[in-house]
Amino acid sequence: MNINNDILNEIRQAAGENNVLQNLEEKIPYKNDASYMPGRIPELVIIPENSDQISRVLKLCTKYKIDVTVRSGGTSLTGSSVTNYNGIIINTMKMDKILELNIASRYVVCQPGVRLDNLNEYLNKYGFFYPPDPASSKASTVGGTISTNAGGLRAVRYGATKEWVLGTEFVTATGEIIRTGEYTLKRSAGYDLTALIIGSEGTLGVLTEAILKIEPLPEKYGRILSFYNDIYDVGSALSAVKNAGITPLIAEFMDLKTINSIRDKLNIKIPDYTQFMLMVDIDSTEASLKGKIENVEKIIKNYTKDVLTIMDQKTMDEIYKARKGAYSALLNQREKKNEIVIIGDVIVPASELPATLKEIKNAVDKMKINVSLFGHIGDGNIHANIFAENTKTGLEKVEKLQMEIAMAAIRHKGCVSAEHGIGTEKNKLLYEEYKERNSLYSLELMKRIKAVFDPENIMNRGKIFYD
Amino acid sequence: MNINNDILNEIRQAAGENNVLQNLEEKIPYKNDASYMPGRIPELVIIPENSDQISRVLKLCTKYKIDVTVRSGGTSLTGSSVTNYNGIIINTMKMDKILELNIASRYVVCQPGVRLDNLNEYLNKYGFFYPPDPASSKASTVGGTISTNAGGLRAVRYGATKEWVLGTEFVTATGEIIRTGEYTLKRSAGYDLTALIIGSEGTLGVLTEAILKIEPLPEKYGRILSFYNDIYDVGSALSAVKNAGITPLIAEFMDLKTINSIRDKLNIKIPDYTQFMLMVDIDSTEASLKGKIENVEKIIKNYTKDVLTIMDQKTMDEIYKARKGAYSALLNQREKKNEIVIIGDVIVPASELPATLKEIKNAVDKMKINVSLFGHIGDGNIHANIFAENTKTGLEKVEKLQMEIAMAAIRHKGCVSAEHGIGTEKNKLLYEEYKERNSLYSLELMKRIKAVFDPENIMNRGKIFYD
Repeated sequence: MNINNDILNEIRQAAGENNVLQNLEEKIPYKNDASYMPGRIPELVIIPENSDQISRVLKLCTKYKIDVTVRSGGTSLTGSSVTNYNGIIINTMKMDKILELNIASRYVVCQPGVRLDNLNEYLNKYGFFYPPDPASSKASTVGGTISTNAGGLRAVRYGATKEWVLGTEFVTATGEIIRTGEYTLKRSAGYDLTALIIGSEGTLGVLTEAILKIEPLPEKYGRILSFYNDIYDVGSALSAVKNAGITPLIAEFMDLKTINSIRDKLNIKIPDYTQFMLMVDIDSTEASLKGKIENVEKIIKNYTKDVLTIMDQKTMDEIYKARKGAYSALLNQREKKNEIVIIGDVIVPASELPATLKEIKNAVDKMKINVSLFGHIGDGNIHANIFAENTKTGLEKVEKLQMEIAMAAIRHKGCVSAEHGIGTEKNKLLYEEYKERNSLYSLELMKRIKAVFDPENIMNRGKIFYD
Repeated sequence: MNINNDILNEIRQAAGENNVLQNLEEKIPYKNDASYMPGRIPELVIIPENSDQISRVLKLCTKYKIDVTVRSGGTSLTGSSVTNYNGIIINTMKMDKILELNIASRYVVCQPGVRLDNLNEYLNKYGFFYPPDPASSKASTVGGTISTNAGGLRAVRYGATKEWVLGTEFVTATGEIIRTGEYTLKRSAGYDLTALIIGSEGTLGVLTEAILKIEPLPEKYGRILSFYNDIYDVGSALSAVKNAGITPLIAEFMDLKTINSIRDKLNIKIPDYTQFMLMVDIDSTEASLKGKIENVEKIIKNYTKDVLTIMDQKTMDEIYKARKGAYSALLNQREKKNEIVIIGDVIVPASELPATLKEIKNAVDKMKINVSLFGHIGDGNIHANIFAENTKTGLEKVEKLQMEIAMAAIRHKGCVSAEHGIGTEKNKLLYEEYKERNSLYSLELMKRIKAVFDPENIMNRGKIFYD
């Protein structure tokens, strides 16, 4: 709806005058996030200091039916953190405190604007960490990663965000401040509203506090790199490791284009035939690590002759950092000025990796489109990075390939989004997934649940749902 | 409502004639579950073979507004699996197949009637297991333990059921067959309906299939028993272990009455002063276990002089089995014929254990009521087993004590139910918890979510919600 000056004044007062951006030049940065999905410049940007302000603002927005999008780090890759309507953006970055650490009880309490790397820097001092670790962890926040159920490199061992949130404070679209879950490691007390909030991409309300589980740092680990000509063998090697009952700490793969984009930072000798590299971290105690690593080397050697093990922490840290920067590095590989790189994100069970990877590779080759593959192969997560011209034809091509990759994932018992969310980029793909599963009613239930939290449909309208 | 013969015939046809119990003597066993909550003899018991039959039956029940309670092992300790109305019971025990095992992808697919011990017997052959392990695992099922988000001895390390369910097939109250989640270890694809089903105690519909995560068996572990005179020291010792960054495989405590009830099975020397025993399992690799155990022994010795370490697998298995049988053993300790033992179930963060245990002990002593304490202290879970006469006065006393214990847990950042669910036993306590947290609107949201799945409120009416 049109937001007149009286309403704007009311909202400004509710938020506190100092917490509002209204000038065009201040609002322009909010038109985009890390995705290529088009957004709009919002009417207002609210940068609140506490949940009371958010509650007051949301009450007004529900009353006047004003669209609201929540944003923190702005690192969404699917358009979750931009608005597509004439509405406001609530930026939670001013709420960036770590409120409490309790080692014995294994939790830390954070505000939504705490960035993941800052949180882990803090926890590491105590010998602990918060496992979810998306590549964007330097910029992405507790609030944003909860909103997309973010995963990252360590999810193969530790699972995604949803396994690490004990409770929240949350403001519903109607301005009700609720607490969900709490400080205990388990509870059996009604429906799991915490879990409902995780992955909801700002469509239900605004997260204002999170109680996160923490984990002792792994004692010691080493890294096994291995090299392949055929993508099928990469998937087979990983499956064989998991079949042997071993769950790596991380398990990443990357294709030659990705390797080349970060080659100067890898500082290792890569065999000439290499089209793909697999990187597996194995952890254990000081006394047992060597034996464990030798065991995994032996398994992997059934699929390639070249295996390189690294135990030096500094080298491992550098490679880890390079891998996390792979998407940014690929952006620098663009050949044309108007080229963009769209990062895909699908997942299949580990046993389905060899066949799925092969099908994706075939689809890419057939379409003669420039694609670079990497991903958290340990949990079956494949990122296909599609290079395309930012034109109508270019984007149509991308959409076609995304659909082919998504359908391959669905055929192999997978999902159209592993860790990036749905946003506006994938709502059609999500619809297709449920259609293929003969379960469109699941989406219907989700829509009705949204209406329970957000009866006027003001929160991040147009995200997740296709129609 | 009154169910007339025409409707009964329709339901019988929908379920399949061979899947219906209608004679009184066949229905009487369904009047009770493992709790002391009063139930009713149902009009009909349906024992379906597949989700289509369940769908047809639920469509009729929604149409005619007939109350439905789901039941499998019948081991509910809070009255979740009995009906309080003139309705039907759906017993899922005929759906008891293990449908698929996929080691590389770390999942097993089960029907709801599979019993947990049978599932683990099957998985152990492959070197894997399904971690949730409630004391009733011999009788309790995949479906029932999902419905209460069951925990058990291993939850301190592995978390409760909610961390182990990847996806489901589920029939809503209106008879819609949906799929939630799927076979992958992570997904970021709309609201987490799987998580919503876990812990919903049969109030949303009927679970007909579950995709469960599995875990490699721990390599090697040992058990440290320690003995105390003061309950405060038990909590302090456990907190100290966790503060040192160690997460035990299991960590149990029991009071003298519990010890005495299983003393003949323990076969260990217990110091004379003992009022409480702590039992901590530590796991590691073959090469490193000894060092780890010594480290934990050292920490615990700050709180007691008597520490006994057991490494022999057979002895450990016997003690584990005895601990799992503690509640049954206590039932045999009843002195009077009309005495019952009501098992409590609250949880607090580990750091709050010393103070909470002390307060519970004080409340018990003040009320001069016969109580035996044990619990999964590693995750803060305390079971107070209350001996009471099965009379109005006796039960009022129990209710009063349960409320005092619940309020102690709430004061210490805890929850009124850790792993047994709410049922009809604890719906007032749950209400009090949310009231104390100033978050009654959370319960309002839950009720509205129930209406999304179950618009006629036919599923397990009266459970979870107080009003």
